[in-house]
Amino acid sequence: MQSYPSYLLENAVNQLSKLPGVGRKSALRLALHLLRQDSQQVNDFAQSILLLKNEVKYCKVCRNISDSDVCSICSDPKRDATTVCVVETIKEVMLIEETEQYKGLYHVLGGVISPMDGIKPSDLEIESLVDRVSKGEIKEIVFALSPTMEGDTTAYYIARKLQGSNVKMTTIARGISVGDELQYSDSVTLGRSILDRQEYKM
Amino acid sequence: MQSYPSYLLENAVNQLSKLPGVGRKSALRLALHLLRQDSQQVNDFAQSILLLKNEVKYCKVCRNISDSDVCSICSDPKRDATTVCVVETIKEVMLIEETEQYKGLYHVLGGVISPMDGIKPSDLEIESLVDRVSKGEIKEIVFALSPTMEGDTTAYYIARKLQGSNVKMTTIARGISVGDELQYSDSVTLGRSILDRQEYKM
Repeated sequence: MQSYPSYLLENAVNQLSKLPGVGRKSALRLALHLLRQDSQQVNDFAQSILLLKNEVKYCKVCRNISDSDVCSICSDPKRDATTVCVVETIKEVMLIEETEQYKGLYHVLGGVISPMDGIKPSDLEIESLVDRVSKGEIKEIVFALSPTMEGDTTAYYIARKLQGSNVKMTTIARGISVGDELQYSDSVTLGRSILDRQEYKM
Repeated sequence: MQSYPSYLLENAVNQLSKLPGVGRKSALRLALHLLRQDSQQVNDFAQSILLLKNEVKYCKVCRNISDSDVCSICSDPKRDATTVCVVETIKEVMLIEETEQYKGLYHVLGGVISPMDGIKPSDLEIESLVDRVSKGEIKEIVFALSPTMEGDTTAYYIARKLQGSNVKMTTIARGISVGDELQYSDSVTLGRSILDRQEYKM
C-alpha cells in the first residue's frame, strides 16, 4: 500500500487515476509532472477542462459538440443538407471528417442500444433524428455504426422508426480493410465482402 | 490534420496532450471521457489539480512535499533523526517508504547535477543539506541516487562539501536485483557486485 506524504497529492492521484487507461503509478507520475510546472500552466490546464465541461454546447440540430447553438458543420451552406450520417459519438464525426470524403451532415446518437449496459432507445438521440427526417428535407440516412450486435440493433431500430418516410437508408461499406492481407481477414468479413462484391473499375 | 468541432475541445486536447506519455489521440479520448462525466466529478478532478499545485507545501526540513510546514516523516518522533537519506525527488521518498526498511529521515535534492540539462548545484537543495549536517545531530548520510553519471557526480559533490564534518557517508548497495537471472545482468553491475561481495549469511 502506497503511503503519500501529502493528502493533496493523494487526492490528485486518486482523481487522475480515474482517467481511462491511467493506473495509480501513471497518476502519480502525472501529479508530480504537474507539480513541476509553473502555476500559470497548471491553472490553464485545469481551466481548459472546466471550460470544456461547463461551457461546451451541443448542436441543437445534430447533437455534435459545438461552441455555438448550431455547429459549424450544420451551419455550413456548402454541405449537403439532404444527406445525414448517423454515428455513435462525436469521435466518429471527427474520424469521418478527417477522411474528407463526406460532404453531408451528421446525427450523433450518443451511443448504441445495448440492453447489457442498460442503454435504451430513449437514452439516445433517436427521436430527434426522426423529427429531423419528418421535416422532409433529408433524402438519405447513412448508418455509420460499429459492425457489432449493438450497432446492427440500433440501425434496425432506427430503420423501423423511419419506415414509411420517403428517406433512402444506406450503411457504410463493410469489407476487407484497405491494405489488409486477405489471409488474415476473419471469415465473417470475408464472406460479407464477397456477398457485397462491387463492379471492378479499371 | 485533425479538425475539432469545438474550440473548447481543441483547447482541452492541447492541454491534455502536454501531459507526459499522452499523445493527441489519447488526449482526445481523455477529453471525451471527461465530457461524459457529470459536472461535479469534472469539477472535483480539476480542483484536485489546482489544490495540489497551489496549496501543497514543501517540508522546511527535508523539502519533501507536505500538507504542513514540517512533513509527517520529519515530525515523527519514532524516526531516527541521526540518519538522513539523500534522494533526487519525492518519488524516491515514496519508493523507499514503501519498502518499510528505512527508519531515518530524508533530504530531497530536487534533481541531480546535470550540465547537459543546465542543472547546477545551486539549483538543488544542497546548501540546505549542508546546513542540516552542520547542526551536528546527523551521524549518517545515505546516498540513494540513480547509478548514473549525474547521480555519481552529485554524490561526489555533496561528499566534498561535507568533508571535515563528522558525518559517515554511505550509499545504497548496488548489485544483482533480487529475482534477476545472473545470465541477463549487465557486466558493470555484475562486476560491481563481485567487488562489493558480502559475507554469506546462512
